[in-house]
Amino acid sequence: MPSGVTRILGIDPGSRITGFGVIDVAGSQQAYVASGCIRTQGGSLPERVKILLDGIREVVATYQPDIAAVEIVFVNVNPQSTLMLGQARGAVVAGLVAAGLPVAEYTALQVKQAVVGNGHADKDQVAHMVQRLLRLSGRPQADAADALGVALTHAQHSGGAARQLAGYRQLSMKRGRLA
Amino acid sequence: MPSGVTRILGIDPGSRITGFGVIDVAGSQQAYVASGCIRTQGGSLPERVKILLDGIREVVATYQPDIAAVEIVFVNVNPQSTLMLGQARGAVVAGLVAAGLPVAEYTALQVKQAVVGNGHADKDQVAHMVQRLLRLSGRPQADAADALGVALTHAQHSGGAARQLAGYRQLSMKRGRLA
Repeated sequence: MPSGVTRILGIDPGSRITGFGVIDVAGSQQAYVASGCIRTQGGSLPERVKILLDGIREVVATYQPDIAAVEIVFVNVNPQSTLMLGQARGAVVAGLVAAGLPVAEYTALQVKQAVVGNGHADKDQVAHMVQRLLRLSGRPQADAADALGVALTHAQHSGGAARQLAGYRQLSMKRGRLA
Repeated sequence: MPSGVTRILGIDPGSRITGFGVIDVAGSQQAYVASGCIRTQGGSLPERVKILLDGIREVVATYQPDIAAVEIVFVNVNPQSTLMLGQARGAVVAGLVAAGLPVAEYTALQVKQAVVGNGHADKDQVAHMVQRLLRLSGRPQADAADALGVALTHAQHSGGAARQLAGYRQLSMKRGRLA
Protein backbone atom coordinates (compact mmCIF):
# COMPACT_ATOMS: atom_id res chain seq x y z
CA MET A 1 0.00 0.00 0.00
CA PRO A 2 1.49 3.41 -0.93
CA SER A 3 2.19 5.79 1.95
CA GLY A 4 -0.57 8.32 2.59
CA VAL A 5 -3.27 5.69 2.12
CA THR A 6 -5.31 4.74 5.16
CA ARG A 7 -7.32 1.54 5.15
CA ILE A 8 -10.50 1.85 7.21
CA LEU A 9 -12.63 -1.04 8.47
CA GLY A 10 -16.20 0.12 9.10
CA ILE A 11 -18.49 -2.03 11.24
CA ASP A 12 -22.25 -1.96 11.78
CA PRO A 13 -22.84 -4.27 14.75
CA GLY A 14 -26.10 -6.18 15.12
CA SER A 15 -27.33 -8.99 17.34
CA ARG A 16 -28.00 -11.22 14.28
CA ILE A 17 -25.97 -9.69 11.44
CA THR A 18 -22.81 -7.59 11.78
CA GLY A 19 -21.87 -5.78 8.56
CA PHE A 20 -18.31 -4.89 7.65
CA GLY A 21 -16.84 -2.70 4.91
CA VAL A 22 -13.23 -1.93 4.04
CA ILE A 23 -12.15 1.16 2.09
CA ASP A 24 -8.83 2.78 1.17
CA VAL A 25 -8.62 6.54 1.66
CA ALA A 26 -6.04 9.13 0.61
CA GLY A 27 -7.11 12.72 1.08
CA SER A 28 -10.45 13.17 -0.65
CA GLN A 29 -10.09 9.95 -2.68
CA GLN A 30 -11.77 6.78 -1.57
CA ALA A 31 -11.71 3.26 -3.00
CA TYR A 32 -13.78 0.20 -2.17
CA VAL A 33 -11.78 -2.79 -0.96
CA ALA A 34 -14.28 -5.33 0.40
CA SER A 35 -17.50 -5.74 2.35
CA GLY A 36 -19.72 -8.45 3.76
CA CYS A 37 -21.40 -9.58 6.94
CA ILE A 38 -20.96 -11.95 9.85
CA ARG A 39 -24.13 -13.89 10.71
CA THR A 40 -24.63 -14.85 14.35
CA GLN A 41 -28.19 -16.15 14.47
CA GLY A 42 -28.97 -18.98 16.89
CA GLY A 43 -26.79 -20.59 19.53
CA SER A 44 -25.78 -19.42 23.00
CA LEU A 45 -24.16 -16.02 23.61
CA PRO A 46 -20.65 -17.52 24.00
CA GLU A 47 -21.14 -19.36 20.67
CA ARG A 48 -22.29 -16.17 18.92
CA VAL A 49 -19.41 -14.20 20.47
CA LYS A 50 -16.97 -16.82 19.14
CA ILE A 51 -18.40 -16.46 15.61
CA LEU A 52 -18.03 -12.65 15.87
CA LEU A 53 -14.45 -12.86 17.18
CA ASP A 54 -13.41 -15.39 14.51
CA GLY A 55 -15.07 -13.29 11.80
CA ILE A 56 -13.38 -10.08 12.88
CA ARG A 57 -10.01 -11.84 13.22
CA GLU A 58 -10.36 -13.14 9.65
CA VAL A 59 -11.39 -9.76 8.22
CA VAL A 60 -8.50 -7.99 10.01
CA ALA A 61 -5.97 -10.66 8.96
CA THR A 62 -7.16 -10.58 5.33
CA TYR A 63 -7.45 -6.81 4.79
CA GLN A 64 -5.04 -5.46 7.44
CA PRO A 65 -6.90 -2.20 8.17
CA ASP A 66 -5.13 0.72 9.90
CA ILE A 67 -8.16 1.73 11.95
CA ALA A 68 -11.69 0.55 12.71
CA ALA A 69 -14.85 2.67 12.91
CA VAL A 70 -17.90 1.22 14.66
CA GLU A 71 -21.44 2.56 14.54
CA ILE A 72 -22.88 3.62 17.90
CA VAL A 73 -26.08 1.60 18.20
CA PHE A 74 -29.46 2.90 19.32
CA VAL A 75 -31.35 1.62 22.29
CA ASN A 76 -34.29 -0.47 21.14
CA VAL A 77 -37.89 -0.24 22.39
CA ASN A 78 -37.42 -3.81 23.63
CA PRO A 79 -34.97 -3.80 26.60
CA GLN A 80 -33.97 -7.44 25.99
CA SER A 81 -33.07 -6.57 22.36
CA THR A 82 -31.06 -3.58 23.62
CA LEU A 83 -29.12 -5.89 25.93
CA MET A 84 -28.46 -8.39 23.10
CA LEU A 85 -27.36 -5.62 20.74
CA GLY A 86 -25.09 -4.17 23.45
CA GLN A 87 -23.50 -7.60 24.00
CA ALA A 88 -22.85 -8.00 20.28
CA ARG A 89 -21.35 -4.51 20.04
CA GLY A 90 -19.17 -5.11 23.13
CA ALA A 91 -17.87 -8.35 21.59
CA VAL A 92 -17.18 -6.60 18.26
CA VAL A 93 -15.22 -3.79 19.93
CA ALA A 94 -13.37 -6.42 22.01
CA GLY A 95 -12.38 -8.26 18.82
CA LEU A 96 -11.07 -5.04 17.24
CA VAL A 97 -9.21 -3.96 20.41
CA ALA A 98 -7.73 -7.47 20.76
CA ALA A 99 -6.47 -7.14 17.17
CA GLY A 100 -4.62 -3.98 18.23
CA LEU A 101 -6.73 -1.62 16.11
CA PRO A 102 -7.62 1.93 17.16
CA VAL A 103 -11.43 2.12 17.29
CA ALA A 104 -13.41 5.26 16.37
CA GLU A 105 -17.14 5.52 17.04
CA TYR A 106 -19.88 7.32 15.08
CA THR A 107 -23.62 7.68 15.62
CA ALA A 108 -26.11 6.82 12.86
CA LEU A 109 -26.80 10.59 12.65
CA GLN A 110 -23.11 11.30 11.94
CA VAL A 111 -23.08 8.56 9.28
CA LYS A 112 -26.17 9.97 7.54
CA GLN A 113 -24.80 13.50 7.65
CA ALA A 114 -21.40 12.43 6.34
CA VAL A 115 -22.65 10.13 3.57
CA VAL A 116 -25.93 11.74 2.49
CA GLY A 117 -25.53 15.24 3.96
CA ASN A 118 -28.84 14.85 5.80
CA GLY A 119 -29.26 13.41 9.30
CA HIS A 120 -32.82 12.34 8.45
CA ALA A 121 -31.81 10.22 5.44
CA ASP A 122 -33.15 6.65 5.34
CA LYS A 123 -31.16 3.43 4.87
CA ASP A 124 -31.92 3.38 1.13
CA GLN A 125 -30.38 6.82 0.64
CA VAL A 126 -27.28 5.78 2.61
CA ALA A 127 -26.89 2.64 0.44
CA HIS A 128 -27.40 4.72 -2.72
CA MET A 129 -24.74 7.28 -1.73
CA VAL A 130 -22.32 4.54 -0.62
CA GLN A 131 -22.71 2.98 -4.08
CA ARG A 132 -22.08 6.35 -5.78
CA LEU A 133 -19.18 7.50 -3.57
CA LEU A 134 -17.34 4.19 -3.98
CA ARG A 135 -18.33 3.79 -7.67
CA LEU A 136 -19.79 0.31 -7.11
CA SER A 137 -21.47 -1.46 -10.02
CA GLY A 138 -24.34 -2.66 -7.79
CA ARG A 139 -26.16 -1.77 -4.59
CA PRO A 140 -24.32 -3.34 -1.62
CA GLN A 141 -26.27 -5.57 0.80
CA ALA A 142 -27.92 -3.46 3.56
CA ASP A 143 -25.62 -4.32 6.49
CA ALA A 144 -22.51 -4.04 4.33
CA ALA A 145 -23.73 -0.67 3.00
CA ASP A 146 -24.13 0.66 6.55
CA ALA A 147 -20.64 -0.57 7.45
CA LEU A 148 -19.15 1.10 4.34
CA GLY A 149 -21.06 4.26 5.38
CA VAL A 150 -19.35 4.16 8.79
CA ALA A 151 -15.95 3.77 7.10
CA LEU A 152 -16.73 6.73 4.78
CA THR A 153 -17.78 8.78 7.82
CA HIS A 154 -14.44 8.14 9.45
CA ALA A 155 -12.70 9.07 6.18
CA GLN A 156 -14.54 12.40 6.16
CA HIS A 157 -13.92 13.11 9.86
CA SER A 158 -10.22 12.36 9.54
CA GLY A 159 -9.98 13.78 5.99
CA GLY A 160 -8.92 17.28 7.04
CA ALA A 161 -5.84 15.90 8.72
CA ALA A 162 -5.06 13.58 5.81
CA ARG A 163 -5.20 16.42 3.29
CA GLN A 164 -2.71 18.41 5.34
CA LEU A 165 -0.10 15.63 5.14
CA ALA A 166 3.16 16.91 3.65
CA GLY A 167 4.14 15.13 0.45
CA TYR A 168 0.57 14.20 -0.36
CA ARG A 169 0.40 13.05 -3.98
CA GLN A 170 -2.39 12.46 -6.45
CA LEU A 171 -3.45 8.82 -6.50
CA SER A 172 -4.86 6.81 -9.34
CA MET A 173 -7.09 3.76 -9.33
CA LYS A 174 -5.81 0.35 -10.37
CA ARG A 175 -8.21 -2.64 -10.33
CA GLY A 176 -10.50 -0.78 -7.95
CA ARG A 177 -7.67 -0.06 -5.49
CA LEU A 178 -5.74 3.15 -4.94
CA ALA A 179 -2.27 2.74 -6.45
CA MET B 1 -3.53 -29.37 40.58
CA PRO B 2 -4.66 -32.94 41.45
CA SER B 3 -6.94 -34.65 38.94
CA GLY B 4 -10.65 -34.41 39.75
CA VAL B 5 -10.31 -30.76 40.78
CA THR B 6 -12.01 -28.20 38.56
CA ARG B 7 -10.99 -24.53 38.82
CA ILE B 8 -13.95 -22.24 38.13
CA LEU B 9 -13.71 -18.53 37.29
CA GLY B 10 -16.96 -16.76 38.18
CA ILE B 11 -17.65 -13.33 36.71
CA ASP B 12 -20.23 -10.68 37.58
CA PRO B 13 -20.07 -8.18 34.70
CA GLY B 14 -20.89 -4.51 35.26
CA SER B 15 -20.49 -1.35 33.21
CA ARG B 16 -18.26 0.20 35.93
CA ILE B 17 -17.03 -2.72 38.04
CA THR B 18 -16.66 -6.34 36.92
CA GLY B 19 -16.17 -8.75 39.81
CA PHE B 20 -14.26 -12.02 39.50
CA GLY B 21 -13.89 -14.99 41.83
CA VAL B 22 -11.88 -18.19 41.44
CA ILE B 23 -12.65 -21.41 43.31
CA ASP B 24 -11.39 -24.99 43.21
CA VAL B 25 -14.04 -27.70 43.28
CA ALA B 26 -13.89 -31.46 43.69
CA GLY B 27 -17.22 -33.19 44.19
CA SER B 28 -18.98 -31.44 47.05
CA GLN B 29 -15.79 -29.76 48.32
CA GLN B 30 -15.01 -26.17 47.40
CA ALA B 31 -12.01 -23.98 48.16
CA TYR B 32 -11.45 -20.27 47.67
CA VAL B 33 -8.55 -19.36 45.37
CA ALA B 34 -8.82 -15.64 44.64
CA SER B 35 -11.25 -12.80 43.96
CA GLY B 36 -11.25 -9.13 43.05
CA CYS B 37 -12.64 -6.68 40.55
CA ILE B 38 -11.77 -4.87 37.34
CA ARG B 39 -12.71 -1.18 37.39
CA THR B 40 -13.65 0.43 34.07
CA GLN B 41 -15.01 3.83 35.04
CA GLY B 42 -14.39 6.75 32.68
CA GLY B 43 -12.89 6.75 29.19
CA SER B 44 -14.34 5.75 25.82
CA LEU B 45 -15.91 2.34 25.22
CA PRO B 46 -12.83 1.01 23.35
CA GLU B 47 -10.65 2.13 26.31
CA ARG B 48 -12.93 0.41 28.82
CA VAL B 49 -13.09 -2.72 26.67
CA LYS B 50 -9.28 -2.80 26.60
CA ILE B 51 -9.13 -2.61 30.41
CA LEU B 52 -11.65 -5.48 30.64
CA LEU B 53 -9.75 -7.63 28.11
CA ASP B 54 -6.39 -6.99 29.79
CA GLY B 55 -7.90 -7.71 33.22
CA ILE B 56 -9.49 -10.98 32.10
CA ARG B 57 -6.31 -12.05 30.30
CA GLU B 58 -4.31 -11.44 33.50
CA VAL B 59 -6.78 -13.32 35.72
CA VAL B 60 -6.87 -16.28 33.29
CA ALA B 61 -3.06 -16.34 32.93
CA THR B 62 -2.56 -16.14 36.72
CA TYR B 63 -5.15 -18.66 37.90
CA GLN B 64 -5.57 -20.85 34.79
CA PRO B 65 -9.23 -21.76 35.31
CA ASP B 66 -10.81 -24.75 33.54
CA ILE B 67 -14.12 -23.02 32.89
CA ALA B 68 -15.77 -19.63 33.30
CA ALA B 69 -19.27 -18.90 34.59
CA VAL B 70 -20.79 -15.48 33.86
CA GLU B 71 -23.89 -13.99 35.45
CA ILE B 72 -26.73 -13.19 33.04
CA VAL B 73 -27.40 -9.49 33.63
CA PHE B 74 -30.80 -7.88 34.04
CA VAL B 75 -32.17 -5.20 31.78
CA ASN B 76 -32.11 -1.85 33.57
CA VAL B 77 -34.98 0.66 33.76
CA ASN B 78 -32.64 3.04 31.89
CA PRO B 79 -32.21 1.77 28.28
CA GLN B 80 -28.83 3.53 27.92
CA SER B 81 -27.57 1.73 31.06
CA THR B 82 -28.86 -1.56 29.64
CA LEU B 83 -26.89 -0.93 26.45
CA MET B 84 -23.70 -0.07 28.43
CA LEU B 85 -24.10 -3.16 30.63
CA GLY B 86 -24.68 -5.32 27.54
CA GLN B 87 -21.52 -3.96 25.93
CA ALA B 88 -19.48 -4.70 29.06
CA ARG B 89 -20.89 -8.22 29.25
CA GLY B 90 -20.23 -8.84 25.55
CA ALA B 91 -16.62 -7.72 26.00
CA VAL B 92 -16.21 -9.95 29.08
CA VAL B 93 -17.55 -13.02 27.26
CA ALA B 94 -15.33 -12.14 24.28
CA GLY B 95 -12.28 -12.04 26.57
CA LEU B 96 -13.13 -15.45 28.03
CA VAL B 97 -13.87 -17.00 24.62
CA ALA B 98 -10.65 -15.51 23.23
CA ALA B 99 -8.80 -17.18 26.13
CA GLY B 100 -10.22 -20.51 24.95
CA LEU B 101 -12.41 -21.04 28.04
CA PRO B 102 -15.81 -22.75 27.94
CA VAL B 103 -18.35 -20.20 29.24
CA ALA B 104 -21.43 -21.16 31.27
CA GLU B 105 -24.18 -18.64 32.06
CA TYR B 106 -26.42 -18.31 35.13
CA THR B 107 -29.17 -15.88 36.05
CA ALA B 108 -29.14 -13.97 39.35
CA LEU B 109 -32.11 -16.16 40.37
CA GLN B 110 -30.07 -19.33 39.80
CA VAL B 111 -27.18 -17.85 41.82
CA LYS B 112 -29.44 -16.96 44.76
CA GLN B 113 -31.11 -20.38 44.71
CA ALA B 114 -27.77 -22.20 44.51
CA VAL B 115 -25.94 -20.14 47.15
CA VAL B 116 -28.72 -19.15 49.59
CA GLY B 117 -31.43 -21.65 48.61
CA ASN B 118 -33.87 -18.77 48.07
CA GLY B 119 -34.40 -16.93 44.79
CA HIS B 120 -35.54 -13.84 46.69
CA ALA B 121 -32.35 -13.51 48.76
CA ASP B 122 -30.66 -10.10 48.78
CA LYS B 123 -27.01 -9.32 47.98
CA ASP B 124 -26.09 -9.34 51.69
CA GLN B 125 -27.36 -12.89 52.12
CA VAL B 126 -25.43 -14.01 49.03
CA ALA B 127 -22.21 -12.43 50.39
CA HIS B 128 -22.85 -14.03 53.80
CA MET B 129 -23.33 -17.52 52.34
CA VAL B 130 -20.32 -17.11 50.01
CA GLN B 131 -18.24 -16.30 53.10
CA ARG B 132 -19.59 -19.37 54.95
CA LEU B 133 -19.38 -21.84 52.05
CA LEU B 134 -15.79 -20.85 51.26
CA ARG B 135 -14.79 -20.45 54.95
CA LEU B 136 -13.48 -16.90 54.40
CA SER B 137 -12.24 -14.95 57.42
CA GLY B 138 -13.98 -11.77 56.22
CA ARG B 139 -16.88 -10.64 54.06
CA PRO B 140 -15.73 -10.34 50.42
CA GLN B 141 -16.28 -7.06 48.58
CA ALA B 142 -19.77 -6.96 46.96
CA ASP B 143 -18.78 -7.50 43.29
CA ALA B 144 -16.25 -10.20 44.21
CA ALA B 145 -18.88 -11.93 46.39
CA ASP B 146 -21.35 -12.02 43.47
CA ALA B 147 -18.64 -13.45 41.20
CA LEU B 148 -17.76 -16.13 43.77
CA GLY B 149 -21.52 -16.84 44.01
CA VAL B 150 -21.63 -17.44 40.23
CA ALA B 151 -18.64 -19.80 40.50
CA LEU B 152 -20.35 -21.70 43.37
CA THR B 153 -23.52 -21.92 41.27
CA HIS B 154 -21.59 -23.55 38.45
CA ALA B 155 -19.99 -25.91 40.97
CA GLN B 156 -23.43 -26.97 42.17
CA HIS B 157 -24.88 -27.32 38.66
CA SER B 158 -21.95 -29.43 37.47
CA GLY B 159 -21.50 -31.15 40.85
CA GLY B 160 -23.65 -34.17 40.05
CA ALA B 161 -21.39 -35.08 37.15
CA ALA B 162 -18.23 -34.44 39.17
CA ARG B 163 -19.36 -36.75 41.95
CA GLN B 164 -19.98 -39.51 39.45
CA LEU B 165 -16.37 -39.41 38.22
CA ALA B 166 -14.69 -42.79 38.52
CA GLY B 167 -11.65 -42.76 40.80
CA TYR B 168 -12.90 -39.74 42.73
CA ARG B 169 -10.93 -39.45 45.96
CA GLN B 170 -11.42 -37.52 49.17
CA LEU B 171 -9.54 -34.23 49.15
CA SER B 172 -8.05 -32.30 52.01
CA MET B 173 -7.36 -28.61 52.41
CA LYS B 174 -3.83 -27.26 52.47
CA ARG B 175 -3.29 -23.51 52.94
CA GLY B 176 -6.84 -22.82 51.75
CA ARG B 177 -6.39 -24.89 48.58
CA LEU B 178 -7.59 -28.38 47.81
CA ALA B 179 -4.60 -30.71 47.87
